[in-house]
Amino acid sequence: MIFRNLKYDDYDNGYLCLLEQLTEVNPEKITFDNFASFINNLNDNHIIIIIEKDNKIIASGTLFIENKIIHGISKVGHLEDIVVDKNTRGLGLGKELITYLYNLAYLEGCYKVILNCKESNCEFYEKCGFEKKEAEMVKYFDI
Amino acid sequence: MIFRNLKYDDYDNGYLCLLEQLTEVNPEKITFDNFASFINNLNDNHIIIIIEKDNKIIASGTLFIENKIIHGISKVGHLEDIVVDKNTRGLGLGKELITYLYNLAYLEGCYKVILNCKESNCEFYEKCGFEKKEAEMVKYFDI
Repeated sequence: MIFRNLKYDDYDNGYLCLLEQLTEVNPEKITFDNFASFINNLNDNHIIIIIEKDNKIIASGTLFIENKIIHGISKVGHLEDIVVDKNTRGLGLGKELITYLYNLAYLEGCYKVILNCKESNCEFYEKCGFEKKEAEMVKYFDI
Repeated sequence: MIFRNLKYDDYDNGYLCLLEQLTEVNPEKITFDNFASFINNLNDNHIIIIIEKDNKIIASGTLFIENKIIHGISKVGHLEDIVVDKNTRGLGLGKELITYLYNLAYLEGCYKVILNCKESNCEFYEKCGFEKKEAEMVKYFDI
């Protein structure tokens, strides 16, 4: 099992299909050039991790680091787009992925990591050492 | 009343005291050089807005934009560190600040804006057009 960063080849390597298990992806709007350009423009504070096994992408998650003035000029790690392929769930991969990402956040100097999840997933994240804090509010735009 | 970006002069212009109304700031750890370096290193996707009146900072909020592959390579705006000075609350400033920030997010191409808040503040954000979505989970590091 390999943990690695997202790369160009993932465009046609099952990555978009994996994301579709999580949310709306609209792959028809994503060309290879857009995808490559997205990867090229990632900042050092934006790390997309892939878990691969037997040349197949089986999980992915993002660590997006926000520099903060608060806490003596510190950093907060936002965990985003956490997804484990439906065929490999129940094997502890989710916990391994989360542990990998929060260790990365710690090494990058974050004083905390946060994420938003469905109420039904809170128990899983509690098992990963998280605690429930506040409420997420959202406003969608018609674009 | 002026809406503007954070600048070097704000170091000794009441900005850190305003943030202390929100959370732990540890100003003793923040030198002018650290503060200036923080501002110099802000990316285009990280916008800290100040509301100033009669040369006094009365509110502040951050728009932190995350590029996403999902939604046809789109963007999400994270609203962070929203604070209105306790002496100027109840005048509608909070709503003006939030409206300013989400209009900025819209102009930058975000398909949604999200924020985390205490349960007791949900009603305020509902008045700003937000709806409650998921739960925020957090893990703190001992640093």
